[in-house]
Parts: sequence; C-alpha cells; structure tokens
Amino acid sequence: MTETKQQESPKTHRAVRWHPPSYDVRVEDVPFPKVEHPDDAIVKIALAGLCGSDLHIYRGHDVITKVHTSGHEFVGEVVALGSNFLAVGGEQAASNGRPVLYSTLKVGDRVVSPFTVSCGECRPCRQGFSSRCARSLLFGSPALEGGQAQYVRVPYAGGTLFRLDDIKPDLATESRLTTLADSSLLLLADILPTGYFAALQLLQHPKLLPLLGGNPYPHTTLALSNPVGEAATSKDLLSIALIGLGPVGICAVVSLLDLLWKNGISYYRIIAIDPHEQRRNLIKAIYNKILDANPTLNQKSTFEAVDIETAKQRGFSADNAGFDGVIEAVGNTSAISLAFDLVRPFGVITSVGVHQDQPLPMPGRALYGKNVSLDFGRCPVRSVFPLVLDLLVRRQDVFGEVGTETSLVDRIVGFDEAKVYYDLFDKGKCGKVLFDPWK
Amino acid sequence: MTETKQQESPKTHRAVRWHPPSYDVRVEDVPFPKVEHPDDAIVKIALAGLCGSDLHIYRGHDVITKVHTSGHEFVGEVVALGSNFLAVGGEQAASNGRPVLYSTLKVGDRVVSPFTVSCGECRPCRQGFSSRCARSLLFGSPALEGGQAQYVRVPYAGGTLFRLDDIKPDLATESRLTTLADSSLLLLADILPTGYFAALQLLQHPKLLPLLGGNPYPHTTLALSNPVGEAATSKDLLSIALIGLGPVGICAVVSLLDLLWKNGISYYRIIAIDPHEQRRNLIKAIYNKILDANPTLNQKSTFEAVDIETAKQRGFSADNAGFDGVIEAVGNTSAISLAFDLVRPFGVITSVGVHQDQPLPMPGRALYGKNVSLDFGRCPVRSVFPLVLDLLVRRQDVFGEVGTETSLVDRIVGFDEAKVYYDLFDKGKCGKVLFDPWK
Ligand SMILES: NC(=O)c1ccc[n+]([C@@H]2O[C@H](COP(=O)([O-])OP(=O)(O)OC[C@H]3O[C@@H](n4cnc5c(N)ncnc54)[C@H](O)[C@@H]3O)[C@@H](O)[C@H]2O)c1
Ligand SMILES: NC(=O)c1ccc[n+]([C@@H]2O[C@H](COP(=O)([O-])OP(=O)(O)OC[C@H]3O[C@@H](n4cnc5c(N)ncnc54)[C@H](O)[C@@H]3O)[C@@H](O)[C@H]2O)c1
Ligand SMILES: [Zn+2]
Ligand SMILES: [Zn+2]
Ligand SMILES: [Zn+2]
Ligand SMILES: [Zn+2]
Repeated sequence: MTETKQQESPKTHRAVRWHPPSYDVRVEDVPFPKVEHPDDAIVKIALAGLCGSDLHIYRGHDVITKVHTSGHEFVGEVVALGSNFLAVGGEQAASNGRPVLYSTLKVGDRVVSPFTVSCGECRPCRQGFSSRCARSLLFGSPALEGGQAQYVRVPYAGGTLFRLDDIKPDLATESRLTTLADSSLLLLADILPTGYFAALQLLQHPKLLPLLGGNPYPHTTLALSNPVGEAATSKDLLSIALIGLGPVGICAVVSLLDLLWKNGISYYRIIAIDPHEQRRNLIKAIYNKILDANPTLNQKSTFEAVDIETAKQRGFSADNAGFDGVIEAVGNTSAISLAFDLVRPFGVITSVGVHQDQPLPMPGRALYGKNVSLDFGRCPVRSVFPLVLDLLVRRQDVFGEVGTETSLVDRIVGFDEAKVYYDLFDKGKCGKVLFDPWK
Repeated sequence: MTETKQQESPKTHRAVRWHPPSYDVRVEDVPFPKVEHPDDAIVKIALAGLCGSDLHIYRGHDVITKVHTSGHEFVGEVVALGSNFLAVGGEQAASNGRPVLYSTLKVGDRVVSPFTVSCGECRPCRQGFSSRCARSLLFGSPALEGGQAQYVRVPYAGGTLFRLDDIKPDLATESRLTTLADSSLLLLADILPTGYFAALQLLQHPKLLPLLGGNPYPHTTLALSNPVGEAATSKDLLSIALIGLGPVGICAVVSLLDLLWKNGISYYRIIAIDPHEQRRNLIKAIYNKILDANPTLNQKSTFEAVDIETAKQRGFSADNAGFDGVIEAVGNTSAISLAFDLVRPFGVITSVGVHQDQPLPMPGRALYGKNVSLDFGRCPVRSVFPLVLDLLVRRQDVFGEVGTETSLVDRIVGFDEAKVYYDLFDKGKCGKVLFDPWK
C-alpha cells in the first residue's frame, strides 16, 4: 500500500462478462481499467455481489447488445486516482467546495461504492437524490463496466465512493466497524440501503404519520405552527404489508422493524409475502432472532410470513380496509397489483422493484377511489449511507454472517463458479452469492 | 328561527334532478326530505354550487340509471335534527365521546357541508381522512340526494357539518367572518379545500422538503434526532407546474402561493397550464391582484400561465430536468401524461382530478426511472376545513367577489335557469355558477 498516485499495472484482469442476448455470462480476461478523467478512481475489488437486479439484464429484459462486465456491488481498495484528488502524494488540500473526498481520498483507502455513480455536486445530489444524479451511471451496464471483476473504474469518485475510515456515527460504531467483514460491508452497495429506503420512504409519508404518534392528517407545520408529532392522538394499530422476500425484501423488513422500534412503535401488524416457502422461512427465522434481542416488544404485535392467497385473506378480514402501507420489492406487474389490492384507502405504496414496459395495472378511477399514494424508484444509496451504516453495525446478528440459517449472504465463491451460480440464483436455488475475484 | 326540534313541513320542494343517460337535468318538485336516522339533519339551502365534478355524471361518464337530485356543494341553515342531537330544545348535553356537534348543533344554526358525508368516528375519520370515511356518501349521487334543491338530508350530520359559528381561529378572522357572503362560504364545500389539499399534499411530500428550507433528503426525524427543517441547505429554486385552471386549479394556485409565502419561500418558478386562453387570463389577473397585496415578494420569482405546448418547452428548457412538483387538476389521461412529462426525477405529482377507467399512461419502467411519487384522490374536506377557512377569510379579494374580472364565482342564478347553465358550463362558456333555490 502506497500513498502516491500510482497504478498497479497488469495488462489485463479477470471479469464476469455478460453476452447478448440472454443467459450468457463468461469469465474473461479484459484490459486493465485506466484513469480516463481527473475525477476517476481505480478500485481493486475485494468482494463483488450477485444481485436480483443483475437478473434483469441476465434474462435479457432490456434490449442490450453490448458485451460488458456485470455487477454493481463491490467493496475494495483504491489503487489509483485521477489528478483532481489533491491529497495524492500525501499533501492535504482544500476541496474548493467540491465533495470532501477530492481532498482526502488516498491510494490504499478502503471503500464501498453505491451501485450508481453520483457526482455530489449537481442539483439532485445536493438535495439528497444521488440515484438521479445528473451524471448518473449504473455499474454493470452498457454505460459503465461493472464490479464483478478484479478492478473497476469509478467515475466522479469523490462524489460516489464512501471511505470506510470516515465512519464514526458514535464510538460504539467506530470500534465495531474495524471488525466488520467485507461480506457485511458489501451489503451497503445496494440491497441494505434499498431495503432501508423502502421502509423509510413508507414511514416518512405524511399519510402514515398519524399512526406514528403524530396529529391527524394533515398535521402540518407548513400551514400551522404546531409541530408534527406533538400529540399522539391515534391509538390505531399500524399495519404494513411487504411483498417479495428476496434480499431487498428481507432488508426492508429488518429496516422497518428498526425504524418502528426506534420511534417507540412496538404495536403493529406486519405481513411479509412471498410465494417461496424457503424465503418465508428465512424471514421468520430472522424475525425471531432479532425479536429475541428485543424482549420489550408489545406482545400484541403480529408478524406473519405468508403466501399470496393468505395475504389477500388477511388484508380483507381484519378491518376490511387493507394495510396502511405496502412495500413492493419484486418488480413485476402482479406484485404491483397485489400491492394495490392490499392497500387501504389513503394508504401508501412504496415500490422499489425494477419494472418493465407494461403500464401500471390500476385504472385512474381506482387510484382516485382509494386516495392512494405511490413512490417509485431507485435507492439514493449515497444519500442514505450514514443512516444505513448505523443499522448495519447494530444488526450484525443478521448482516454479519455468511452461510448460517439466518444469514442474508448464502456463500462466497470464486469466478470459476460464476456461470454456475448465475444459473442457480436465476432459478431461485440459492440465496445471495458474493464473488471473491482472487479466489 | 327556533331552538326546538322541528321540521318545516311543506309536502314538496324544488330540486335539480339528473336523468339518465346524459345531458338531461330537470327542475322538479320532489318529496320533502325526512329525518331517517337519529344522526340526520335537514338543511334548508341558501346557495348550491354547480361544479366541474357534476359534469362527470351530467355527461354520462359513470353508468348510472337512477334519477337523483344533483349537486354536492351547499350552505344553509339547520331546520330539523334527529334524536341523537342532544342540544335539541336548548339543553346542552355531554357528547358521550361522539363528535361535539351531536351535543351542540341546534335548529337555526348556519352550516356548510363537505361534498361527502363523514361520520367523524371511524378509523379514517379519526386519522384525518374524512373523504374515505367508512360510511362515506357523496351528495348528488345515486347513493344520496344532492344539494341543488331547497332542502337536503345530511346523514351523520354531527360528523359531517361544519357550523359557521364555531369559527374562531383568531380574532381578526372571527370578526370578519360574520361579514362573509354565502357565495364565499360555499367555496368551502369543495373547490377551495380541494385546491388547498392539492397544494398542501404536494408541498408536504418529503421529496419537496429540501426545497422548503429543510435538510437534504431523507432529512428525517424518524431515523435521526435532528429535526426536519432545522438547517436550510438548499438555495435551489422551487419549480411547480399546475395543470388545469378550472375553479379547482385556481384554488390550488392561490393556496400554493399562500403556503409558500407563509413558509418564507418567495423565490419560485410557477407555471399554470390550460388550453383555454380565458382561463389563463383569469389566473393571471388573480395572480397580479394578490401580488399587489404582497409587495415583499422576490422579484426573481416567475409565474406564467401558458398553453400545453409552451409548458412542454418551459419544462425542458430551464434545467432539462423538469418541475419539482406538478399538480393535476383536470381528470383525464392526457393531463396525467403531461404531468409525468413535466415532473423532474424524484419529483412529485399530486392529482386531484377525477379519473375514469383507463390505466395510467406511464409504464412501470418510466416511473422507476424517474423516481416519481404520485398522490391521488378525493379531498378530505372536513379534515382540512380549519386550515382552508383561514385562507378564505384572508383572501376575500379573490374568494369574496361575484361577477368581477377576477372572481371565481361567475354568477348566481335561480333554478329556472339551471338547464341553461348546465349546458353553458359544460361547454366552458361560463365560470362557476351558484344556484339560489329561492330566487
Ligand atoms: N430500487 C432500487 O434501487 C433497487 C435496488 C436493488 C434491487 N432492486 C429491485 O428490487 C427487486 C427485488 O430485488 P431482490 O434482489 O430481492 O430480488 P429477488 O428476485 O431475489 O427477490 C424477489 C422475490 O419476490 C418474490 N415474488 C415474485 N413475484 C411475487 C409476487 N407476485 N408476490 C410476492 N412475491 C413475489 C420472489 O419469489 C422472490 O423471492 C428487483 O426488482 C430488483 O431489481 C431495486
Ligand atoms: N379530488 C377531489 O376531491 C375533487 C374535488 C372537486 C373536483 N375534482 C375534480 O377536479 C378536476 C377539476 O375540477 P374543476 O371544477 O376545476 O373542472 P373544470 O372542468 O372546470 O376545469 C378543468 C380545466 O382543465 C383544462 N384542461 C383540460 N385538459 C387539459 C390538459 N390536458 N392540460 C391542461 N389543462 C387541461 C380545461 O380547459 C379546464 O379549464 C375535475 O376532474 C373534478 O372532477 C376533484
Ligand atoms: Zn444489487
Ligand atoms: Zn450529481
Ligand atoms: Zn364540487
Ligand atoms: Zn367516518
């Protein structure tokens, strides 16, 4: 590890490459990535994730013809930096109003990257919407080589990367952080922030605030001077349905529980839905595990993991009105339809699934008739990073383990097994897989 | 006016009746409404509104076969009460936990009603979602006789009605209130709350808070302890597009400006869109009028009223990213499409238009790709009443006048002219019309 601006210089490195039209990935030797712009960094990859989102491209959902390196989740170490990184060579410089990493990031720093590039300087970035940065690029797409490789080029690296040394929410976190495994930190690239974003976006919606101890709707500080949340007027039970129990859905459940408990909501009804029994069993085991660590919870709260038919019955039996909030973490039309069926009037649907070209299945009349609110889209990982890191550190019982009954990461394999595991993962025959490019 | 439980008892009264299948309203004598349930009130109508929403039924958009009295906007005086009104006869009683009007409302009280019935006691009502009350009924629909009549029956009247004597947000309001004309108070039944709801719902969305002086997204009190809005980090210009300049759209513009100014936002870009030049001219005149009364506004702010083509150019010229928020106050697919075209990534669309059976025109991929949030539905008039009343009182320059160049209410006519004015209103040849059933 050296403090100077330098580049390890093998001629080629190994990468998992996607080939058109579908179901074809190959491990190939490709040219070593170069600094192409003064804001670039080159990262040597320690671990790379295989993710549900990779399957959209793998299966040929998108019309793509360009062969490219797959993968958008990685942790690693900086091995080269462009000339805009002023700390290169050891001297520290002012950042000139640019993101602070341009004045502090050094070769040798350990970093994790969000799954999209964000400059940190444009209007969306400044406002906290990093996933819609004006210069956004998605790793592992035709526009940008991915992270299932030994090395990767990171554009706008001072805005994009998160340096793992910079983490000090509190002392407890800091001291525990040095012990976090790469397999745990890798979850920060995509799925944990995305699950957290889904849960936070749902609970933050003004239509749910009355149930989180706020005043009745419209409970606004905008129009009146009484602050939101001053008086708890509603003793009604908060009910939430979560659709899809892949890695993102699991992260959403854990995040949701954390946010509820943090805000003193220990009385709720949560239903988690997936057609696959194995995935339902996993979330039940995880729930029980974290419940054991939180013995103060209200015994009247309920958490169920059910199939789609049972979910529909639950939705309509309790109060015949549906769930206050629904998280959709699947990414197909039938899941969005189910979300709409399950949500109550004046309820909220938060969708983090990646959807295709079909129109939404609900007619305008029905949306009006239920006063539904919907949120769509890509997680602004960089913007929610600090919040999510805090959760990751505190929930090492769930996010720290590999290959146990309750762990989110199923196994870590080498590139030689990439083809096999793409296939198994595609068929739902394994959980989340990480690649060690050096194995 | 008498304090006893009594009922004026003509055998019949005059009402504007809708006949299937479409474009057929007739003024007819119908049986006098009776108290059918102990929670009912009978109201003698002073003024009733003709509204854009009446046109959905008038034009036969809904498959309705039942002849019924039209109209869902009215102000008037209580002339009879069911036995659950304990103050009847003068004595005041405890409300037994029921809405307070059950213990205080008296024959002779002046009232205005939201356009839907709400019990004030069910879960949605308690939470502030009165328009989706579990017992909701829409006036002027097959389910409930409307207000374009001399008398009307109001179910769950203790939860539904708003007594105009109860208004005392502050002294200034109270003293001015006695001078408010019925034609002004009638706007509280539907269009002013609906416009206000559209504006408030938009500005309250978490995705817009960074532009209202809040921290960057996700700026949450749920996950962190720093309160929303503590530090103003964004100096970015807030931009809002408003689609549809009927009475609801105009009320939305006036409400939006009021909410912005109240919150210290005097630097904005607003664009109001309607294909009809006359409607654009009206909003311009109203804007200039209220601007004259607010000379402290930032001169860099812009307000334009434009046609659809110009709107599209504006949306894409400024920052090539679109508007932060879009209000849709039309109720058709082309307006929703336009809203989607105009909104920026991570922007918010608030739709108060009443939509029909078509699916939304945007594919799931596009909604994901823009990280759009959407809110739909019917205004919870009863729940937002106090906020809206405050605005009504302060903006008598706009809402107090009838028949001037800048007034929202075009004219007040008798039932003999109902047929003619339905036709003119349907063709966009007149502004908002009120009926005086006694003229
Ligand atoms: N918004 C973002 O930023 C973001 C980030 C990462 C992933 N994603 C997307 O989130 C979605 C989930 O990701 P993942 O990695 O968990 O995927 P996954 O494919 O591993 O899991 C999806 C789960 O949904 C279940 N499912 C399928 N149809 C269902 C239905 N109708 N009802 C209930 N469950 C159903 C499947 O059985 C599966 O368990 C994908 O669309 C992915 O592309 C979005
Ligand atoms: N959500 C609620 O609670 C609620 C309450 C009242 C009314 N509404 C609905 O709100 C809508 C507006 O009501 P209104 O009384 O103002 O109606 P209106 O018919 O008087 O006005 C609609 C305006 O939209 C314009 N318009 C039509 N197509 C357009 C387009 N593509 N782009 C821009 N403008 C377009 C028309 O020229 C017209 O000026 C209606 O659908 C009505 O039913 C909803
Ligand atoms: Zn991923
Ligand atoms: Zn950016
Ligand atoms: Zn109306
Ligand atoms: Zn109710």
